[in-house]
Amino acid sequence: MKPMMKSKPDQDCLHGGVYSVNPGLVQLDFSSNVNPLGISKHLLRDLYSELNSLCTTYPDPLCRELKNSILDYLGIGLDPSWLLIGNGATELIHIFARTFIRRNVVISAPTFCEYELSARRAGATVKFVPLKNWKPDTEKILKESTNGCDAVFLCNPNNPTGILSTVSMRQIIENISSDTQIFIDECFIELVDEGDKKNTMIEMVSDYKNLVILRSMTKSFCLAGIRLGYCVCNPKLINRMLENKISWNVNGVAQKLGTMVLKDPSYLEKSKRLIQRERNFMMNELGKTTKFSPMLSDVNFFLIDVSNQSSVEVRNYLLSKRGILVRDCSTFTGMGLRHIRVAVKKHIENTTLIDAFKSMGP
Amino acid sequence: MKPMMKSKPDQDCLHGGVYSVNPGLVQLDFSSNVNPLGISKHLLRDLYSELNSLCTTYPDPLCRELKNSILDYLGIGLDPSWLLIGNGATELIHIFARTFIRRNVVISAPTFCEYELSARRAGATVKFVPLKNWKPDTEKILKESTNGCDAVFLCNPNNPTGILSTVSMRQIIENISSDTQIFIDECFIELVDEGDKKNTMIEMVSDYKNLVILRSMTKSFCLAGIRLGYCVCNPKLINRMLENKISWNVNGVAQKLGTMVLKDPSYLEKSKRLIQRERNFMMNELGKTTKFSPMLSDVNFFLIDVSNQSSVEVRNYLLSKRGILVRDCSTFTGMGLRHIRVAVKKHIENTTLIDAFKSMGP
Repeated sequence: MKPMMKSKPDQDCLHGGVYSVNPGLVQLDFSSNVNPLGISKHLLRDLYSELNSLCTTYPDPLCRELKNSILDYLGIGLDPSWLLIGNGATELIHIFARTFIRRNVVISAPTFCEYELSARRAGATVKFVPLKNWKPDTEKILKESTNGCDAVFLCNPNNPTGILSTVSMRQIIENISSDTQIFIDECFIELVDEGDKKNTMIEMVSDYKNLVILRSMTKSFCLAGIRLGYCVCNPKLINRMLENKISWNVNGVAQKLGTMVLKDPSYLEKSKRLIQRERNFMMNELGKTTKFSPMLSDVNFFLIDVSNQSSVEVRNYLLSKRGILVRDCSTFTGMGLRHIRVAVKKHIENTTLIDAFKSMGP
Repeated sequence: MKPMMKSKPDQDCLHGGVYSVNPGLVQLDFSSNVNPLGISKHLLRDLYSELNSLCTTYPDPLCRELKNSILDYLGIGLDPSWLLIGNGATELIHIFARTFIRRNVVISAPTFCEYELSARRAGATVKFVPLKNWKPDTEKILKESTNGCDAVFLCNPNNPTGILSTVSMRQIIENISSDTQIFIDECFIELVDEGDKKNTMIEMVSDYKNLVILRSMTKSFCLAGIRLGYCVCNPKLINRMLENKISWNVNGVAQKLGTMVLKDPSYLEKSKRLIQRERNFMMNELGKTTKFSPMLSDVNFFLIDVSNQSSVEVRNYLLSKRGILVRDCSTFTGMGLRHIRVAVKKHIENTTLIDAFKSMGP
């Protein structure tokens, strides 16, 4: 990683997923980081019984039922005025930026590209603080986030590394100017091995009026298709963000499905066990190869160092020869051609991926 | 209507629908203007068979399949670069405003409140041009839309009047400065008696680079719950609006359902016959009362003049005594307490509404 970090030349925010390539080529998508457990059939049957009214009548613009389910699930004693529901977490990143960002922002990078895109769209200058040994450089982030810094964007665990940095998060919250908004994306925190309770900063919203926590039901509950995320922060911030929200931003099917998945308390526990077991299996198998070195991760995806191969070539090879899509990380600001990212999926799929890597040489 | 038209004092954009009141009170919602024909059961069954993958995998950020279906349906020889799909028509109104509006706009009013809201959020001054005999005042609109006017908002047929003004639309398009964007909301045009072909301005997008046509699948195909709309305009405008669109703004269920409904060519014909027959029935019956005078309309809703009663009181009475929700029009900029708006629904529902009106006196 270079000390002076620049955006990718085209300033695009490129994502993985089957639509990042010719979708017809993809038989197995390891580039999307969603919970491998999927949705239960009985839940889809229940949804079907309400599908007619969910599709034909206007959804609640305030998502009241869903907000109550989320508050019950979080169990941290907040009321609905502390919540904002989005058409995916991405919508909330952009609403946040349009509301609070004018001058400049600090982004700990590499990370999810939507923070940068949203800040640039709001007209801000972006200062990147490179990760230090793959962790946020807390000291530098605090130093850079002075003099007109509207917001700091952080992601815990980070994407694409999958690494938790809980101590850094706390230090930044406690030491940053109260004029700077702290946006912490916790979209993967419910899937870390030890659970979110020890790592989330969500309860600190009561004490820090400049703290916004982002969660994604897309990732945690495998609802990528329906787009569902939420922000938790002080009602004063929520009220300002509401001025940039459209009516009916979350459709009826998404609101209902979000409410339904939260009713199964064992789902996330099962998911975490599956992820931990399968990630260990994948890392262990990859450790037997010489060309692919898995990097430690706390969550349902991890980086693989492809050494002197090119991440683009590895991605293209796996796609064209095996129909497997992995995430080429060269499109992340601050990353070169040395890493790909893979999701942890179900055992049979992971085995197929490992076989494909092994076929590329000892 | 006063000559100097002001926004409602709270500058809120208030909508009808069951969530505008206590939803538990509403047994019949006549305040939402969606196609009364609903969705067919076999279509929902087909959707169910794909529901798992639609919910769990990322949707196409470019909505390619849906765009192709819309282009086939429109049949006007455009390619996908002329289309932008939105999370409901409302999202597109706001994307349009964020992209093109800075200084001031002209709105023919009363009309749908989201135009005003989107323009104010973009920091613009709003000049209202009052309807003249319930039709757009073409001359005044052209006169006002000079000197830094970024956009004119029009709605054909208009909401809440339900009246077509096709000649005005054409005159405004042909005579306005090419520096001013013309935004024509045609969200109800597919439901007018004589069909959209004679009335739509959609083919003029080829000749007028400043013309944006908005369509809503919410209204025409009874998909209010899933949020789906689209804009048709010159690709140069689309490309600028794309800079304000988020990734994955249209969820997977919405994209698929939108594609499916367009495959039934008889749906809109059946809908229009139902609407015309039922609107005539409702108007005829209301004509027999002395307290409620229906106003002519071209589409699936119409205004009722409540004369010296108050629209708020009529709304509240019907809701509390009959569980029927109608739209009190006093929340539209430029309207007083003299009108309510009702949707045309199925015969049994319309009969219930008529009975309720008749119960209020001869």
